Amino acid sequence: MNFSEQAAENLRRIQENKPLIHNITNFVVMNYTANVLLAAGASPVMAHAENEVEEMVGFAGALVLNIGTLSDAWLASMITAGKEATRRGTPIVLDPVGSGATRLRTDAAKAILAQTRVRIVRGNASEILSLGDADAQTKGVDSAHGVDQAAAGAADLARSLDTTLAITGPIDLVTDGRRIIRVANGHPLMPFVTGTGCSASTLVGAFAAVDDDPVSAAATALAFFGLAGEKAGAASSGPGSFMIALLDALYLISPDELEAGCRISDES
Amino acid sequence: MNFSEQAAENLRRIQENKPLIHNITNFVVMNYTANVLLAAGASPVMAHAENEVEEMVGFAGALVLNIGTLSDAWLASMITAGKEATRRGTPIVLDPVGSGATRLRTDAAKAILAQTRVRIVRGNASEILSLGDADAQTKGVDSAHGVDQAAAGAADLARSLDTTLAITGPIDLVTDGRRIIRVANGHPLMPFVTGTGCSASTLVGAFAAVDDDPVSAAATALAFFGLAGEKAGAASSGPGSFMIALLDALYLISPDELEAGCRISDES
Amino acid sequence: MNFSEQAAENLRRIQENKPLIHNITNFVVMNYTANVLLAAGASPVMAHAENEVEEMVGFAGALVLNIGTLSDAWLASMITAGKEATRRGTPIVLDPVGSGATRLRTDAAKAILAQTRVRIVRGNASEILSLGDADAQTKGVDSAHGVDQAAAGAADLARSLDTTLAITGPIDLVTDGRRIIRVANGHPLMPFVTGTGCSASTLVGAFAAVDDDPVSAAATALAFFGLAGEKAGAASSGPGSFMIALLDALYLISPDELEAGCRISDES
Repeated sequence: MNFSEQAAENLRRIQENKPLIHNITNFVVMNYTANVLLAAGASPVMAHAENEVEEMVGFAGALVLNIGTLSDAWLASMITAGKEATRRGTPIVLDPVGSGATRLRTDAAKAILAQTRVRIVRGNASEILSLGDADAQTKGVDSAHGVDQAAAGAADLARSLDTTLAITGPIDLVTDGRRIIRVANGHPLMPFVTGTGCSASTLVGAFAAVDDDPVSAAATALAFFGLAGEKAGAASSGPGSFMIALLDALYLISPDELEAGCRISDES
Repeated sequence: MNFSEQAAENLRRIQENKPLIHNITNFVVMNYTANVLLAAGASPVMAHAENEVEEMVGFAGALVLNIGTLSDAWLASMITAGKEATRRGTPIVLDPVGSGATRLRTDAAKAILAQTRVRIVRGNASEILSLGDADAQTKGVDSAHGVDQAAAGAADLARSLDTTLAITGPIDLVTDGRRIIRVANGHPLMPFVTGTGCSASTLVGAFAAVDDDPVSAAATALAFFGLAGEKAGAASSGPGSFMIALLDALYLISPDELEAGCRISDES
Repeated sequence: MNFSEQAAENLRRIQENKPLIHNITNFVVMNYTANVLLAAGASPVMAHAENEVEEMVGFAGALVLNIGTLSDAWLASMITAGKEATRRGTPIVLDPVGSGATRLRTDAAKAILAQTRVRIVRGNASEILSLGDADAQTKGVDSAHGVDQAAAGAADLARSLDTTLAITGPIDLVTDGRRIIRVANGHPLMPFVTGTGCSASTLVGAFAAVDDDPVSAAATALAFFGLAGEKAGAASSGPGSFMIALLDALYLISPDELEAGCRISDES
């Protein structure tokens, strides 16, 4: 099965099985990412209490950890949930929001990577590079490095972290250290809506819940999200109407339409 | 006054008196439920600090307690606020989000019911059944039981809990243990938007602030919300445009339009 | 440069420099205010952990402190961040949501004013008046006083607090105790969307990041937000479509369009 066929198959499985995706995520995007999952056919749950997360993750098809609006208590819950997910073999997706910008965020991302088995990390180039290189700098949560500059080091970093990296930007890059995949779907209005990166991460979680190959799960999820962005962009006049049209598009795109619209290329 | 006339009268009172509805609710839906209340003409306030909630609930026409994204600290504040509301005779609405799914949620819902005087519980069938039956199971926050299966036990449960139950689904059921009311308004896109259940609960709070009869308050609120869903569904192409059109509909539906569109039937 | 020219110049600077605006704000509006900043061309960051805020505010062009959904821990972080911003000379905007309604909120607003150097306070008349007068009463977070009644005391209060006050209502009032400016832009649907006041505050932060004069920064930000409201109102049928069209308008209004549409009058 090529990536386009796999994308269609993954979306079909999500719509049929409605996997429960457990998110421990930031306050800014909770509502939007829950709506993104629902529109795509998955079942979101947000739960962060340290005395609940182990039980909750037991029902989940994937665990998504997002370190925006972080605090020590939330980090502790993420690691508790992540350890239980690791024990169960449940896929974990990490979104290292703002890693590289502050010590709290950088240390948190590294602690999660060290103490749990993260299957996929989804971030922008600065955030991803900060996981390996203490000198990388992030301006807030925006990317200061382009995807192309990141590509060189990304495969090395994926191998050294023993995970799959999904670096989003105008062209997305997915690598497990051996394969290098690029996803060209997307729309320039995406960075003007808060939580589009976080939404990409939670969709990667939904795709990882139905696809055991992390490279294919991440690439097909990003193609789906990017295609929805293209469809939304064609129907929008600004970022407000775009964010709403994006939810509609995630709901309306059929597996066949995704197969036809996917722009994934394998460079490995 | 029949239910349709009462629905119109309740909406008129909300638009005129703009009752303050104090919500202690989950992070996912805070923004949307506040917008739902504003669109309907009520005044939302969200406040959760244990050293503030007693004072805040003193200004409120109703208190809405919602246990999504729960933690011990938030539960303590809910009980503090609930005791003060009980002392004042202010109506309390409980939304037991995820009760039955985890011990934290189930225990929390039961603790609130035991320690405060809850006038109305609004949930899906699984959540409501979990309040009485230790074996009921919830998949995340979605319902695993249909409304029809729930009807049999609901009246018994309402009597044993000494409260009014509002069980939402394709057809909603409202019972205080004596009366059994069904509400047929609604739209299939509602479950594709996060927080529609929570929004129904907070609207039940607004209606309870102006209607002393809990059965009529709950049934008319659900009819209003369902009618807004019908109107929104007719103007939408997916869950994004639906969630926005729903806010418009709550603002635009007049008391007379509500009276004409209500589909409430009394089966008792 | 008159206010209209300054408004255009400020918007141009924001779109070019994309200043990072650090918000410690309430859970209800985090998503919407982040989207407002992005649509206007600024870069939002939300971060509240006490062990992160000093580092984060070091990257910021302005700090916006908003006391909705307050708790003691969040207040402590606001003061920590505010002291660091004061030390650096970074402009601080305070939104005293609900000040006057509960002791926690009133005391918090006064503590922030006492312990940090607040450049601009943006609130409704009741909230602002509560900062000086222990008798002022707020019904929830809504204004019980009109802008006109407030004008008399506002200039005195601005002098006694040694800050600039931006009091929003049908007509906005901005004063530093010497100058009195009125802004007539706006739309009647604004109060039907939660977080429009908070969004005005965070935009005041973005304008203060590029304009050292607090009176001109506040007045031009409010004119921009009000003009976007006018544009959105013309394209909306209710508060849902309005809140989305408002984001589009903030993105679409050009500096020249702002210069032409500004309705700012200097009464001093």
